[in-house]
Amino acid sequence: MSTKFVYKFSEGNGTMRELLGGKGANLAEMTNLGMPVPQGFTVTTEACTQYYKDGKQINEDIRNEIFANLADFEKLVGKKFGDPENPLLVSVRSGARASMPGMMDTILNLGLNDEVVEGFAKFTNNPRFAYDSYRRFIQMFSDVVMELPKPEFEKIIDQKKEERGVVQDTELDADDMKDLVVRFKAFYKEKKGTDFPADPKVQLMEAVKAVFRSWDNPRANVYRRMNEIPYDWGTAVNVQMMVFGNSGDNSGTGVAFTRNPATGEKALFGEYLINAQGEDVVAGVRTPFPISHLKEDMPEVYDQFAAIADRLEKHYRDMQDMEFTIENGQLFMLQTRNGKRTAAAALKIAVDLVDEGMISENEAVLRVEPKQLDSLLHPQFDAAELKKAELIGKGLAASPGAACGKVVFTAEDAKEWADRGEKIVLVRRETSPEDIEGMNVAEGILTVRGGMTSHAAVVARGMGTCCVSGCGEIVMNEEAKEFTLGGKTIKEGDFISIDGSTGNIYYGAIPTSPAAISGDFSRFMAWADAVRKLKVLANADNPRDAKQGRAFGAQGIGLCRTEHMFFEETRIKAMREMIVAENTEDRKKALAKIEPYQQGDFEALYEVMEGDPVTIRFLDPPLHEFLPTKEEDIKEIADELGITVEKLKTVIASLHEFNPMMGHRGCRLAVSYPEIAEMQTTAVIKAAINVTKKGKFSVKPQIMIPLVGEVKELKFVKDVVVATADKLIAESGIDLEYEVGTMIEIPRAALTADEIATEAEFFSFGTNDLTQMTFGFSRDDAGKFLDYYYDNKVYESDPFAHLDQKGVGKLVEMAAKLGRQTRPDIHLGICGEHGGDPTSVEFCHRAGLDYVSCSPFRVPIARLAAAQAALKD
Amino acid sequence: MSTKFVYKFSEGNGTMRELLGGKGANLAEMTNLGMPVPQGFTVTTEACTQYYKDGKQINEDIRNEIFANLADFEKLVGKKFGDPENPLLVSVRSGARASMPGMMDTILNLGLNDEVVEGFAKFTNNPRFAYDSYRRFIQMFSDVVMELPKPEFEKIIDQKKEERGVVQDTELDADDMKDLVVRFKAFYKEKKGTDFPADPKVQLMEAVKAVFRSWDNPRANVYRRMNEIPYDWGTAVNVQMMVFGNSGDNSGTGVAFTRNPATGEKALFGEYLINAQGEDVVAGVRTPFPISHLKEDMPEVYDQFAAIADRLEKHYRDMQDMEFTIENGQLFMLQTRNGKRTAAAALKIAVDLVDEGMISENEAVLRVEPKQLDSLLHPQFDAAELKKAELIGKGLAASPGAACGKVVFTAEDAKEWADRGEKIVLVRRETSPEDIEGMNVAEGILTVRGGMTSHAAVVARGMGTCCVSGCGEIVMNEEAKEFTLGGKTIKEGDFISIDGSTGNIYYGAIPTSPAAISGDFSRFMAWADAVRKLKVLANADNPRDAKQGRAFGAQGIGLCRTEHMFFEETRIKAMREMIVAENTEDRKKALAKIEPYQQGDFEALYEVMEGDPVTIRFLDPPLHEFLPTKEEDIKEIADELGITVEKLKTVIASLHEFNPMMGHRGCRLAVSYPEIAEMQTTAVIKAAINVTKKGKFSVKPQIMIPLVGEVKELKFVKDVVVATADKLIAESGIDLEYEVGTMIEIPRAALTADEIATEAEFFSFGTNDLTQMTFGFSRDDAGKFLDYYYDNKVYESDPFAHLDQKGVGKLVEMAAKLGRQTRPDIHLGICGEHGGDPTSVEFCHRAGLDYVSCSPFRVPIARLAAAQAALKD
Repeated sequence: MSTKFVYKFSEGNGTMRELLGGKGANLAEMTNLGMPVPQGFTVTTEACTQYYKDGKQINEDIRNEIFANLADFEKLVGKKFGDPENPLLVSVRSGARASMPGMMDTILNLGLNDEVVEGFAKFTNNPRFAYDSYRRFIQMFSDVVMELPKPEFEKIIDQKKEERGVVQDTELDADDMKDLVVRFKAFYKEKKGTDFPADPKVQLMEAVKAVFRSWDNPRANVYRRMNEIPYDWGTAVNVQMMVFGNSGDNSGTGVAFTRNPATGEKALFGEYLINAQGEDVVAGVRTPFPISHLKEDMPEVYDQFAAIADRLEKHYRDMQDMEFTIENGQLFMLQTRNGKRTAAAALKIAVDLVDEGMISENEAVLRVEPKQLDSLLHPQFDAAELKKAELIGKGLAASPGAACGKVVFTAEDAKEWADRGEKIVLVRRETSPEDIEGMNVAEGILTVRGGMTSHAAVVARGMGTCCVSGCGEIVMNEEAKEFTLGGKTIKEGDFISIDGSTGNIYYGAIPTSPAAISGDFSRFMAWADAVRKLKVLANADNPRDAKQGRAFGAQGIGLCRTEHMFFEETRIKAMREMIVAENTEDRKKALAKIEPYQQGDFEALYEVMEGDPVTIRFLDPPLHEFLPTKEEDIKEIADELGITVEKLKTVIASLHEFNPMMGHRGCRLAVSYPEIAEMQTTAVIKAAINVTKKGKFSVKPQIMIPLVGEVKELKFVKDVVVATADKLIAESGIDLEYEVGTMIEIPRAALTADEIATEAEFFSFGTNDLTQMTFGFSRDDAGKFLDYYYDNKVYESDPFAHLDQKGVGKLVEMAAKLGRQTRPDIHLGICGEHGGDPTSVEFCHRAGLDYVSCSPFRVPIARLAAAQAALKD
Repeated sequence: MSTKFVYKFSEGNGTMRELLGGKGANLAEMTNLGMPVPQGFTVTTEACTQYYKDGKQINEDIRNEIFANLADFEKLVGKKFGDPENPLLVSVRSGARASMPGMMDTILNLGLNDEVVEGFAKFTNNPRFAYDSYRRFIQMFSDVVMELPKPEFEKIIDQKKEERGVVQDTELDADDMKDLVVRFKAFYKEKKGTDFPADPKVQLMEAVKAVFRSWDNPRANVYRRMNEIPYDWGTAVNVQMMVFGNSGDNSGTGVAFTRNPATGEKALFGEYLINAQGEDVVAGVRTPFPISHLKEDMPEVYDQFAAIADRLEKHYRDMQDMEFTIENGQLFMLQTRNGKRTAAAALKIAVDLVDEGMISENEAVLRVEPKQLDSLLHPQFDAAELKKAELIGKGLAASPGAACGKVVFTAEDAKEWADRGEKIVLVRRETSPEDIEGMNVAEGILTVRGGMTSHAAVVARGMGTCCVSGCGEIVMNEEAKEFTLGGKTIKEGDFISIDGSTGNIYYGAIPTSPAAISGDFSRFMAWADAVRKLKVLANADNPRDAKQGRAFGAQGIGLCRTEHMFFEETRIKAMREMIVAENTEDRKKALAKIEPYQQGDFEALYEVMEGDPVTIRFLDPPLHEFLPTKEEDIKEIADELGITVEKLKTVIASLHEFNPMMGHRGCRLAVSYPEIAEMQTTAVIKAAINVTKKGKFSVKPQIMIPLVGEVKELKFVKDVVVATADKLIAESGIDLEYEVGTMIEIPRAALTADEIATEAEFFSFGTNDLTQMTFGFSRDDAGKFLDYYYDNKVYESDPFAHLDQKGVGKLVEMAAKLGRQTRPDIHLGICGEHGGDPTSVEFCHRAGLDYVSCSPFRVPIARLAAAQAALKD
């Protein structure tokens, strides 16, 4: 049997969203429910994918099916396509599986031509309306199907209005509209060289093609990438009988929600326009009335609509977003769908629906998009103000939230200004550990250089501070305390606003609303926690981040990057002494200076986590990161270290690497200099002994060896760890347990995970590095070509944001299986950036991992995503 | 049943080499053959690995088994250990599975003490001999077991000789020897704080332990790494009754081969010393006689030995390397093994043994080590002269062979000097494409910078010219035309000698013997070709290398790196124009200039290969490699390109990458700039059309897309290729076939090979990059830490030299399986450096690949390795 490419509304139902798109499925469902829906048919998403397979052609089968359905349709509604006596006019609208509002194209009033319009004028007894509809159709068809720019038509209208000495479109009469039609068609012929297509069937097929084509337009592609909608889904096309909200003062059109999409409040919320078509509401030329006003205007219609709305909400068991048209006092439903809503509304609606007995707690858990929670946890721009704001540039969305403040250029200034009560945004070429205090008091951080894993980005995410990083277009002039971007020069003290969720940088101040976690939040999260299987831990390098993670429900620390501790001013000197040391003895001396600091850090972390796991990753970055690069710093630091500039330069040169990402780092440092692992083990264990001795809880440190690619490498470092730890524990006289595990972040480690597991007591998938190595591209450099890849649809999403399940995921699954094969009770987790990404968390659940670890502010997101994954399973 | 750790010689046989080691197995075999072998027993290799498992302890079981066997042994020979009346003295020697000459330790005359020596003196009626044996034992035991340096003992002997006014050891009499024993023991006590162990059983156990320990000594570790002998094999220990070649003029000791190990000539070859122990032969203090002299000295012994030698050769069906001792006119065989031999000898012996009917052709194929062939294909240093040479430094063994010549520092000088008949070695900081002509005329190339894949290394391997690269210790002074290394300053015109097979750099001239391929070679290789399953192709970027590959039997080109063609002076300007172009049109213009050159190159390659496959890899390196880095060059090139210095600097800066290895390169370039792929396709196809039109043979180009990680990426580029190619072919009116395939060099490509194969008609494993990504280390940087890894036995061999079968190999096998699953007739090959490495070739055979491709001079090696793999299968 051949594929069925076209469904009448009466043939479909609400579950057929994959085939009919959301709009088509819901039109069918409403039809089944006996609601007043203008009839029509849906050309399926499969027809769309077939169109692309056939080289952007609609094949004969599909075409025949469309016309067969058109014939049935004509019989059903008793009108005929192209019949001047009683013409059938249709709308042609896109409708994908997932709602993509405004992304694709719509054509209204299709079926008009010079002859039909005459009949239509007579039939409706409203020539102005008929010609207005015709000129709208020509305009829309020319724009959408033929790519003649809309503004050109607007110019013609403006010219006409000028000639007629009027201001509003509504002041133009039937003859004016008729004349506009003539002018539009002339313009069309001039530009396209052919007459405007008069045959309604040609119009229809062209319109269907245009909708299919619009699936591939640039804004749709960008939207899909942002919303993780696969390109291969395709869009359906809905061909529906026109009803006219613009056929007089007894007509109108509107949109409404069953609950307030901003706050979640339970009450019809929406607006409508009298004597208008849908596009007029969207265009915002006239100011619509609130939906409550309809109660006074047309009480019967309002009551009918309210009853339908209530029925739809109960039917779909969720807040509905509806479009309707009133034609000569008669209500028609054009669309219903689960309404988009803010995070706050989503939370309130989910909780309310449970309280109303409409949905279960588990269903409620599925009703909030995890990544939406971000906006509850961080300040947000006032939406109305944002619309007016002037965008001057874009960087990387490095840490979410919105910030607005006066620009300062140094951490010192940041502190000083903040101390006197100013809200500031810290703008730096790049940040370094010395900037911590300034970063801590800033509303937001903006950097010229550095990617998603730069110092600024990592620290800001830990703090929950808004950060836009790597805006390379900024031209900095630090001496003059100013920078230029997007043609503006911004001086110290000038306001800017940045959005760490989008990377946008705005000129001037945009008011923000603060983070707002309501009582609903903890009730809701408790439901989520009750169902999830995955534990959620936090990545935290210091007590502040650890406390934040704890506050957001982290069940331990999954990743403490010890190197961040080395950067503090008091320690970096010893670190540098270690690096320039020429023998083991000198290295040990320098390391001994760092040890007490590290021990203190670890004690503080253990205290915060109260016996929950604290996973400490040993030194990871290449050593050159601790050394200066600028000439003047080299001189200063050489003096500080008491060595010659030449000597320091020699060390720096000897540490130079062609590909530092693949260089002397991770456990390779510990294999070369076991004394580093020895010192870190000492700090980890001594701290655990001290805290355990206090008797409040017992600590079981998790020591994590990074960048392992071979079991012997892990064994070598583990032997050092165990020898050091066991000696200290024996001396302490207390009974302390600890575990030694490894990051799985090198493809070879995943491939040989059965061997690695003979030594590793846990695996933590470092999916940042694993993604880099598996794809063979460096995150810092990929920006240069990834845009070409998105444009050519080679990749649809950023593999650093969403775990690549086909490639990297295959390695994760393989390693999990091999690891458990060797050691059935091995703990498996993930601690890359992906640990806070909902689709990646879902993958981790399916792959059978035990935990995910992510930055503190993503912990709630991961908790919810984990719960949803468990419920979907 | 518990493991048996000790075997009497009479219990073993020649097949038990894994357990008894080579020496032990052959001693057992000779015992079985009824040959005169001093009896004893072998402690197995498993005892050695047990010793390491037990934390370097010999456990009670093994100890008991040794003493039980000792007791049986005493009964067998009628002597007793420690019995002054009729003492049993033994030698304790190592013997691993593979011969590791001189790498591990030997102790002779064990069982002597103050009491036993007295009895021994009486028993032999030769006090001088007895005390000489005793002092030798003390010396050897102290050195090997107790790590007291040998030279200290030599000093004591020298002192004694001085006191006695004599020059030769032989001039010392029995009392002198007795006195030396006293002095040795005093020295021992002074140094070790204890008496020299008098109990023969203690001596024995300590000696066994010392042999086990010597398995792990640094020189053994280095030797194993060089010879790919696994660490976990362990060594056996042979305890054998002493026979004394030094017991008088009717005694002696010697070594002999059944054929000449240097030339392969069929005749007993060897030497012996009268009245000496084995170590005297090795030490070279006295000059031994050639073995033929023994015929005159002791005709009966000679005849007996010659008969045994003949029997052994026939028994083992291979040339034997034997050790023997004559004690009071009686012959004893101490060892036999298949003799090591030069490549030339190996070839001649293999061919001769076939002609003598002793082995089959297939067996002959297995008798030559593939990598040995290298020395037939390149000049070699004269072995005797090499011993005297002064080593001044070491770089990377980048291209094999030996070279000796006068130093020049520029390619121009190289050409000039060579033109006037000088042999020169070109010394450069690093080479670049402009140096090609100079490299072409050089005997050898030495560079300060650059790894195994640097320009110098790759080009030299292609040319078959000796090259040592990356000798960072060289201090260059190009202006003064000199460099210093190892304390020597070498000026232009001074002689140096370099060995590209070892990386050694020698001061002065060492004579070389030229490459020598005999008639046996082609006969032998034909046998190899008859059995191998793998095709062998060559990596060749130009007609010269292609011809060389062809001459060595390459069945096509498996990798033509097109970028090497872009570097030539006439082309690089157009390449640079392409890079600085600001739009597609300008890029296309610049590319159009390169196209005819590329076409010409490809035509030439097709001509050489006469219809055999020519695999052309599209542009691979990051574009910044084509731009200058030095300030003065930037100025010059900006002028040449007619742009400002600023503009060029901006382009260079925009191309900067943090990790170029993982940056904008490979097919990523073609996705960004499809016009590059278009131009290359045009050149490939037009060239094929032209050559095919000549009618001699038809060309089927293989277009290879590098660095693919995702099927859509390949499809995108393939679509460009196919559109371009099909149009040209249609226009040409001839029937040309071509294939489009991909490198598998990104882990993700291997993981998703089933998808990739939907588009790829062949896979070529790029194991260089695949190794880098799978291990997560860059070849250029790994040198900094790999030594620590070798020292700690984390890695036993360089994964860039020998394919890592566990990790990288797993990916290769997975990809081969997935690829064939999708496309059963897909061609699979390998074109990394590993394509010329015998163990890697063997892996490729087992993994079921269709071909390997390697540099021209490795083609014969690959052919032989492939044949051996097929025979072993």
